[in-house]
Amino acid sequence: MQLVPKSLQSLIEALSVLPGVGPKSAERYAYYLLRSDPSNADKLSAALSGLHDGVGYCSKTYALVEKGTDISPLYSDESRDKSLVAVVADPFDIIALEKTGQYTGTYHVLGGLLSPIDGLGPDDLHIPELLTRIDEDNVAEVILATNASVEGESTALYIQKHLDADTVKITRLAQGLPVGTDIDYADQITLGRALAGRTNL
Amino acid sequence: MQLVPKSLQSLIEALSVLPGVGPKSAERYAYYLLRSDPSNADKLSAALSGLHDGVGYCSKTYALVEKGTDISPLYSDESRDKSLVAVVADPFDIIALEKTGQYTGTYHVLGGLLSPIDGLGPDDLHIPELLTRIDEDNVAEVILATNASVEGESTALYIQKHLDADTVKITRLAQGLPVGTDIDYADQITLGRALAGRTNL
Repeated sequence: MQLVPKSLQSLIEALSVLPGVGPKSAERYAYYLLRSDPSNADKLSAALSGLHDGVGYCSKTYALVEKGTDISPLYSDESRDKSLVAVVADPFDIIALEKTGQYTGTYHVLGGLLSPIDGLGPDDLHIPELLTRIDEDNVAEVILATNASVEGESTALYIQKHLDADTVKITRLAQGLPVGTDIDYADQITLGRALAGRTNL
Repeated sequence: MQLVPKSLQSLIEALSVLPGVGPKSAERYAYYLLRSDPSNADKLSAALSGLHDGVGYCSKTYALVEKGTDISPLYSDESRDKSLVAVVADPFDIIALEKTGQYTGTYHVLGGLLSPIDGLGPDDLHIPELLTRIDEDNVAEVILATNASVEGESTALYIQKHLDADTVKITRLAQGLPVGTDIDYADQITLGRALAGRTNL
Protein backbone atom coordinates (compact mmCIF):
# COMPACT_ATOMS: atom_id res chain seq x y z
CA MET A 1 0.00 0.00 0.00
CA GLN A 2 1.23 3.50 -0.90
CA LEU A 3 1.26 5.23 2.49
CA VAL A 4 2.59 8.56 1.23
CA PRO A 5 0.88 10.35 -1.68
CA LYS A 6 3.02 10.21 -4.83
CA SER A 7 3.62 13.95 -5.12
CA LEU A 8 4.79 14.13 -1.51
CA GLN A 9 6.99 11.08 -2.02
CA SER A 10 8.69 12.62 -5.04
CA LEU A 11 9.34 15.80 -3.10
CA ILE A 12 10.91 13.77 -0.27
CA GLU A 13 13.12 11.98 -2.78
CA ALA A 14 14.13 15.21 -4.50
CA LEU A 15 15.02 16.80 -1.14
CA SER A 16 17.08 13.76 -0.11
CA VAL A 17 19.76 14.58 -2.70
CA LEU A 18 20.79 17.66 -0.68
CA PRO A 19 24.05 17.23 1.25
CA GLY A 20 23.48 16.02 4.80
CA VAL A 21 19.73 15.62 4.32
CA GLY A 22 18.56 12.12 5.18
CA PRO A 23 15.08 10.63 4.71
CA LYS A 24 13.86 11.95 8.08
CA SER A 25 14.91 15.56 7.42
CA ALA A 26 13.51 15.36 3.89
CA GLU A 27 10.18 14.16 5.33
CA ARG A 28 10.18 17.02 7.81
CA TYR A 29 10.94 19.65 5.15
CA ALA A 30 8.34 18.22 2.78
CA TYR A 31 5.66 18.03 5.44
CA TYR A 32 6.46 21.56 6.56
CA LEU A 33 6.06 22.83 3.00
CA LEU A 34 2.81 20.90 2.64
CA ARG A 35 1.34 22.41 5.80
CA SER A 36 2.62 25.94 5.38
CA ASP A 37 1.28 28.50 2.93
CA PRO A 38 1.61 27.24 -0.68
CA SER A 39 3.53 30.44 -1.50
CA ASN A 40 6.57 28.97 0.30
CA ALA A 41 6.68 25.96 -2.02
CA ASP A 42 5.97 28.18 -5.03
CA LYS A 43 8.79 30.60 -4.18
CA LEU A 44 11.23 27.75 -3.70
CA SER A 45 10.12 26.13 -6.93
CA ALA A 46 10.56 29.38 -8.87
CA ALA A 47 13.96 30.06 -7.29
CA LEU A 48 15.12 26.58 -8.27
CA SER A 49 14.02 26.85 -11.87
CA GLY A 50 15.79 30.20 -12.24
CA LEU A 51 18.99 29.07 -10.55
CA HIS A 52 21.16 27.83 -13.42
CA ASP A 53 19.99 30.55 -15.80
CA GLY A 54 20.90 33.32 -13.39
CA VAL A 55 24.38 32.34 -12.25
CA GLY A 56 27.63 32.39 -14.16
CA TYR A 57 31.31 32.17 -13.30
CA CYS A 58 33.88 34.93 -13.66
CA SER A 59 36.26 33.86 -16.42
CA LYS A 60 39.25 35.23 -14.52
CA THR A 61 38.62 34.46 -10.83
CA TYR A 62 35.85 31.80 -11.07
CA ALA A 63 33.80 33.71 -8.52
CA LEU A 64 30.02 33.59 -8.99
CA VAL A 65 28.63 36.38 -11.14
CA GLU A 66 25.27 37.33 -12.62
CA LYS A 67 24.82 35.42 -15.88
CA GLY A 68 26.04 37.62 -18.71
CA THR A 69 28.75 39.26 -16.63
CA ASP A 70 32.16 38.06 -17.78
CA ILE A 71 34.40 39.44 -15.04
CA SER A 72 33.51 39.68 -11.35
CA PRO A 73 33.37 43.24 -9.97
CA LEU A 74 35.73 41.94 -7.27
CA TYR A 75 38.37 41.82 -10.00
CA SER A 76 37.32 44.54 -12.42
CA ASP A 77 37.02 47.16 -9.66
CA GLU A 78 39.89 49.62 -10.07
CA SER A 79 40.55 49.78 -6.34
CA ARG A 80 41.33 46.07 -6.12
CA ASP A 81 45.00 45.20 -5.90
CA LYS A 82 45.55 42.71 -8.73
CA SER A 83 49.03 41.80 -7.55
CA LEU A 84 47.52 40.20 -4.43
CA VAL A 85 45.49 37.01 -4.90
CA ALA A 86 43.64 35.07 -2.18
CA VAL A 87 43.14 31.46 -3.26
CA VAL A 88 39.89 30.00 -1.86
CA ALA A 89 38.09 26.69 -2.32
CA ASP A 90 34.51 27.90 -2.76
CA PRO A 91 32.77 31.11 -3.80
CA PHE A 92 31.22 31.52 -0.34
CA ASP A 93 34.70 31.76 1.18
CA ILE A 94 34.96 35.09 -0.66
CA ILE A 95 31.98 36.43 1.28
CA ALA A 96 33.60 35.43 4.58
CA LEU A 97 36.82 37.25 3.66
CA GLU A 98 34.97 40.31 2.34
CA LYS A 99 33.10 40.56 5.64
CA THR A 100 36.38 41.22 7.46
CA GLY A 101 36.56 44.51 5.55
CA GLN A 102 40.35 44.16 5.64
CA TYR A 103 41.09 42.70 2.23
CA THR A 104 41.59 44.78 -0.88
CA GLY A 105 43.21 42.19 -3.16
CA THR A 106 41.52 39.86 -5.63
CA TYR A 107 40.39 36.25 -5.38
CA HIS A 108 40.87 32.97 -7.18
CA VAL A 109 38.26 30.26 -6.63
CA LEU A 110 39.62 26.72 -6.99
CA GLY A 111 36.16 25.17 -7.14
CA GLY A 112 36.91 22.61 -4.43
CA LEU A 113 39.85 21.04 -2.66
CA LEU A 114 42.11 18.15 -3.60
CA SER A 115 40.43 14.99 -2.38
CA PRO A 116 41.65 11.68 -3.81
CA ILE A 117 38.80 9.90 -2.01
CA ASP A 118 36.24 11.90 -4.03
CA GLY A 119 38.35 11.62 -7.18
CA LEU A 120 39.18 15.33 -7.15
CA GLY A 121 42.66 15.87 -8.60
CA PRO A 122 44.56 19.05 -9.57
CA ASP A 123 42.99 19.05 -13.04
CA ASP A 124 39.49 19.25 -11.57
CA LEU A 125 40.36 22.49 -9.79
CA HIS A 126 41.25 25.87 -11.33
CA ILE A 127 44.94 25.44 -10.47
CA PRO A 128 46.36 25.71 -14.04
CA GLU A 129 44.37 28.95 -14.46
CA LEU A 130 45.92 30.24 -11.21
CA LEU A 131 49.43 29.60 -12.51
CA THR A 132 48.66 31.38 -15.79
CA ARG A 133 47.13 34.29 -13.94
CA ILE A 134 50.15 34.73 -11.67
CA ASP A 135 52.27 35.26 -14.77
CA GLU A 136 49.80 37.47 -16.62
CA ASP A 137 48.99 39.78 -13.72
CA ASN A 138 52.52 39.93 -12.30
CA VAL A 139 51.13 38.72 -8.99
CA ALA A 140 53.39 39.59 -6.06
CA GLU A 141 51.68 37.62 -3.28
CA VAL A 142 49.45 34.56 -3.22
CA ILE A 143 47.51 34.01 0.03
CA LEU A 144 46.55 30.37 0.37
CA ALA A 145 43.19 30.84 2.11
CA THR A 146 41.97 27.24 2.08
CA ASN A 147 40.29 25.56 5.07
CA ALA A 148 42.42 24.45 8.02
CA SER A 149 41.44 20.84 7.23
CA VAL A 150 43.40 17.92 5.81
CA GLU A 151 42.12 18.67 2.28
CA GLY A 152 42.72 22.40 2.74
CA GLU A 153 46.27 21.85 3.95
CA SER A 154 47.19 19.40 1.21
CA THR A 155 45.72 21.63 -1.49
CA ALA A 156 47.73 24.56 -0.13
CA LEU A 157 50.86 22.40 -0.09
CA TYR A 158 50.27 21.25 -3.66
CA ILE A 159 49.88 24.82 -4.91
CA GLN A 160 52.89 25.98 -2.93
CA LYS A 161 55.04 23.30 -4.61
CA HIS A 162 53.93 24.43 -8.04
CA LEU A 163 54.67 28.10 -7.49
CA ASP A 164 58.06 29.68 -7.88
CA ALA A 165 58.89 31.10 -4.45
CA ASP A 166 61.55 33.34 -6.02
CA THR A 167 59.08 35.34 -8.09
CA VAL A 168 55.97 35.28 -5.90
CA LYS A 169 55.53 35.52 -2.16
CA ILE A 170 53.39 32.66 -0.83
CA THR A 171 51.47 33.08 2.43
CA ARG A 172 48.92 31.08 4.35
CA LEU A 173 46.16 32.29 6.72
CA ALA A 174 47.40 32.23 10.32
CA GLN A 175 46.35 29.30 12.48
CA GLY A 176 45.94 29.71 16.22
CA LEU A 177 43.39 30.39 18.91
CA PRO A 178 40.02 31.69 17.69
CA VAL A 179 39.14 35.00 19.35
CA GLY A 180 37.38 34.47 22.68
CA THR A 181 38.63 30.94 23.27
CA ASP A 182 39.96 29.62 26.57
CA ILE A 183 43.38 28.00 26.21
CA ASP A 184 41.96 25.26 28.42
CA TYR A 185 39.44 24.29 25.80
CA ALA A 186 41.63 24.57 22.70
CA ASP A 187 42.59 21.24 21.12
CA GLN A 188 46.25 20.16 21.09
CA ILE A 189 46.83 20.76 17.40
CA THR A 190 45.36 24.26 17.45
CA LEU A 191 47.36 25.14 20.54
CA GLY A 192 50.49 23.68 18.92
CA ARG A 193 49.93 25.87 15.86
CA ALA A 194 49.32 28.91 18.07
CA LEU A 195 52.66 28.24 19.81
CA ALA A 196 54.56 27.67 16.59
CA GLY A 197 53.08 30.82 15.03
CA ARG A 198 53.52 33.07 18.10
CA THR A 199 54.07 36.72 17.24
CA ASN A 200 56.41 39.35 18.69
CA LEU A 201 54.80 42.06 20.75
CA MET B 1 28.41 45.27 -3.84
CA GLN B 2 26.17 42.25 -4.55
CA LEU B 3 28.50 39.35 -3.74
CA VAL B 4 25.97 36.58 -4.44
CA PRO B 5 24.11 36.50 -7.78
CA LYS B 6 20.43 37.40 -7.33
CA SER B 7 19.02 34.04 -8.40
CA LEU B 8 21.28 32.20 -5.97
CA GLN B 9 20.38 34.66 -3.21
CA SER B 10 16.65 34.10 -3.72
CA LEU B 11 17.16 30.33 -3.59
CA ILE B 12 19.10 30.70 -0.31
CA GLU B 13 16.26 32.81 1.10
CA ALA B 14 13.58 30.36 -0.05
CA LEU B 15 15.49 27.43 1.49
CA SER B 16 15.90 29.29 4.78
CA VAL B 17 12.17 28.97 5.55
CA LEU B 18 12.57 25.20 6.05
CA PRO B 19 12.50 24.12 9.72
CA GLY B 20 15.97 23.95 11.24
CA VAL B 21 17.68 25.32 8.13
CA GLY B 22 19.78 28.38 8.91
CA PRO B 23 21.60 30.66 6.46
CA LYS B 24 24.71 28.43 6.40
CA SER B 25 22.79 25.23 5.57
CA ALA B 26 20.71 27.09 2.99
CA GLU B 27 23.94 28.32 1.36
CA ARG B 28 25.33 24.81 1.33
CA TYR B 29 22.16 23.33 -0.23
CA ALA B 30 21.94 26.11 -2.82
CA TYR B 31 25.61 25.81 -3.79
CA TYR B 32 25.28 22.04 -4.02
CA LEU B 33 22.30 22.39 -6.38
CA LEU B 34 24.20 24.97 -8.43
CA ARG B 35 27.22 22.70 -8.85
CA SER B 36 25.40 19.42 -9.36
CA ASP B 37 23.56 18.39 -12.50
CA PRO B 38 20.72 20.87 -13.29
CA SER B 39 18.31 17.92 -13.33
CA ASN B 40 18.48 17.86 -9.50
CA ALA B 41 17.20 21.42 -9.24
CA ASP B 42 14.64 20.76 -11.97
CA LYS B 43 13.29 17.65 -10.25
CA LEU B 44 13.01 19.47 -6.95
CA SER B 45 11.33 22.44 -8.62
CA ALA B 46 8.79 20.19 -10.36
CA ALA B 47 8.09 18.21 -7.19
CA LEU B 48 7.44 21.44 -5.30
CA SER B 49 5.05 22.86 -7.84
CA GLY B 50 3.07 19.61 -7.89
CA LEU B 51 2.97 19.25 -4.10
CA HIS B 52 -0.24 20.96 -3.09
CA ASP B 53 -2.16 19.73 -6.13
CA GLY B 54 -1.29 16.11 -5.45
CA VAL B 55 -2.00 15.72 -1.76
CA GLY B 56 -5.34 15.64 0.05
CA TYR B 57 -6.53 14.67 3.50
CA CYS B 58 -8.78 11.71 4.31
CA SER B 59 -12.10 13.17 5.50
CA LYS B 60 -12.41 10.53 8.19
CA THR B 61 -8.90 9.93 9.55
CA TYR B 62 -7.08 13.06 8.26
CA ALA B 63 -4.29 10.85 6.96
CA LEU B 64 -2.61 12.03 3.74
CA VAL B 65 -4.23 10.69 0.57
CA GLU B 66 -3.82 11.20 -3.16
CA LYS B 67 -5.85 14.27 -4.17
CA GLY B 68 -9.30 13.10 -5.26
CA THR B 69 -9.37 10.18 -2.83
CA ASP B 70 -11.89 10.89 -0.08
CA ILE B 71 -11.12 8.09 2.35
CA SER B 72 -7.67 6.67 3.13
CA PRO B 73 -7.19 3.00 2.20
CA LEU B 74 -5.99 2.57 5.78
CA TYR B 75 -9.61 3.09 6.79
CA SER B 76 -11.59 1.84 3.81
CA ASP B 77 -9.68 -1.48 3.72
CA GLU B 78 -12.10 -4.21 4.89
CA SER B 79 -9.42 -5.93 6.96
CA ARG B 80 -8.89 -2.87 9.17
CA ASP B 81 -10.51 -3.06 12.59
CA LYS B 82 -12.60 0.12 12.80
CA SER B 83 -13.32 -0.33 16.50
CA LEU B 84 -9.63 0.26 17.25
CA VAL B 85 -8.26 3.78 16.66
CA ALA B 86 -4.67 4.91 17.11
CA VAL B 87 -4.52 8.67 17.68
CA VAL B 88 -1.34 10.21 16.22
CA ALA B 89 -0.05 13.76 15.88
CA ASP B 90 1.26 13.69 12.32
CA PRO B 91 0.68 11.64 9.17
CA PHE B 92 4.24 10.31 9.25
CA ASP B 93 3.59 8.69 12.62
CA ILE B 94 1.25 6.35 10.73
CA ILE B 95 4.15 5.11 8.62
CA ALA B 96 6.20 4.38 11.76
CA LEU B 97 3.34 2.35 13.25
CA GLU B 98 2.63 0.56 9.97
CA LYS B 99 6.27 -0.49 9.76
CA THR B 100 5.88 -2.53 12.94
CA GLY B 101 3.52 -4.79 10.97
CA GLN B 102 1.65 -5.40 14.23
CA TYR B 103 -1.23 -2.99 13.94
CA THR B 104 -4.49 -3.77 12.16
CA GLY B 105 -6.70 -0.98 13.52
CA THR B 106 -7.31 2.44 12.00
CA TYR B 107 -5.76 5.85 12.63
CA HIS B 108 -6.81 9.34 13.54
CA VAL B 109 -4.41 12.17 12.74
CA LEU B 110 -4.68 15.15 15.09
CA GLY B 111 -2.64 17.42 12.84
CA GLY B 112 -0.32 18.50 15.63
CA LEU B 113 -0.11 18.53 19.41
CA LEU B 114 -1.49 20.95 21.98
CA SER B 115 1.05 23.70 22.42
CA PRO B 116 -0.09 26.92 24.11
CA ILE B 117 3.26 28.51 23.28
CA ASP B 118 2.58 28.09 19.54
CA GLY B 119 -1.07 29.04 20.00
CA LEU B 120 -2.26 25.50 19.19
CA GLY B 121 -5.42 24.74 21.17
CA PRO B 122 -7.89 21.82 21.03
CA ASP B 123 -9.89 23.50 18.24
CA ASP B 124 -6.84 23.59 15.98
CA LEU B 125 -6.51 19.82 16.16
CA HIS B 126 -8.95 17.17 14.88
CA ILE B 127 -10.12 16.36 18.42
CA PRO B 128 -13.86 17.16 17.92
CA GLU B 129 -13.81 14.88 14.84
CA LEU B 130 -12.25 12.13 16.97
CA LEU B 131 -15.06 12.36 19.53
CA THR B 132 -17.70 12.22 16.78
CA ARG B 133 -15.97 9.27 15.17
CA ILE B 134 -15.82 7.30 18.42
CA ASP B 135 -19.61 7.52 18.60
CA GLU B 136 -20.26 6.82 14.93
CA ASP B 137 -17.92 3.85 14.59
CA ASN B 138 -18.66 2.33 18.00
CA VAL B 139 -14.97 2.49 18.80
CA ALA B 140 -13.99 0.04 21.56
CA GLU B 141 -10.39 1.15 22.13
CA VAL B 142 -8.50 4.40 21.57
CA ILE B 143 -4.70 4.10 21.62
CA LEU B 144 -3.14 7.47 22.43
CA ALA B 145 -0.02 7.18 20.26
CA THR B 146 1.36 10.68 20.69
CA ASN B 147 5.04 11.43 21.29
CA ALA B 148 6.54 10.82 24.72
CA SER B 149 7.17 14.57 25.02
CA VAL B 150 5.55 17.26 27.17
CA GLU B 151 3.20 18.24 24.32
CA GLY B 152 2.48 14.60 23.51
CA GLU B 153 1.68 13.79 27.14
CA SER B 154 -0.56 16.81 27.67
CA THR B 155 -2.43 16.18 24.43
CA ALA B 156 -3.00 12.57 25.48
CA LEU B 157 -4.20 13.74 28.89
CA TYR B 158 -6.58 16.25 27.33
CA ILE B 159 -8.12 13.63 25.06
CA GLN B 160 -8.35 11.13 27.90
CA LYS B 161 -10.31 13.64 29.96
CA HIS B 162 -12.77 14.22 27.13
CA LEU B 163 -13.46 10.55 26.52
CA ASP B 164 -15.95 8.50 28.48
CA ALA B 165 -13.87 5.74 30.05
CA ASP B 166 -17.04 3.71 30.67
CA THR B 167 -17.81 3.27 26.99
CA VAL B 168 -14.34 3.23 25.41
CA LYS B 169 -11.08 1.69 26.58
CA ILE B 170 -8.26 4.27 26.56
CA THR B 171 -4.67 3.09 26.25
CA ARG B 172 -1.29 4.76 25.78
CA LEU B 173 1.85 3.42 24.10
CA ALA B 174 4.16 1.82 26.67
CA GLN B 175 7.09 3.87 27.91
CA GLY B 176 10.28 2.19 29.02
CA LEU B 177 13.73 1.16 27.83
CA PRO B 178 14.26 1.26 24.07
CA VAL B 179 15.42 -2.11 22.75
CA GLY B 180 19.20 -2.46 22.92
CA THR B 181 19.76 0.17 25.62
CA ASP B 182 22.01 -0.20 28.62
CA ILE B 183 20.22 0.54 31.90
CA ASP B 184 23.35 2.49 32.80
CA TYR B 185 22.74 4.96 30.01
CA ALA B 186 18.97 5.37 30.35
CA ASP B 187 17.83 8.70 31.76
CA GLN B 188 16.08 8.79 35.15
CA ILE B 189 12.61 9.52 33.82
CA THR B 190 12.72 6.72 31.24
CA LEU B 191 14.01 4.28 33.83
CA GLY B 192 11.32 5.46 36.25
CA ARG B 193 8.64 4.79 33.64
CA ALA B 194 10.16 1.40 32.86
CA LEU B 195 9.95 0.51 36.56
CA ALA B 196 6.41 1.78 36.97
CA GLY B 197 5.27 -0.07 33.86
CA ARG B 198 7.08 -3.35 34.60
CA THR B 199 5.32 -6.42 33.23
CA ASN B 200 4.73 -9.89 34.71
CA LEU B 201 6.74 -12.71 33.19
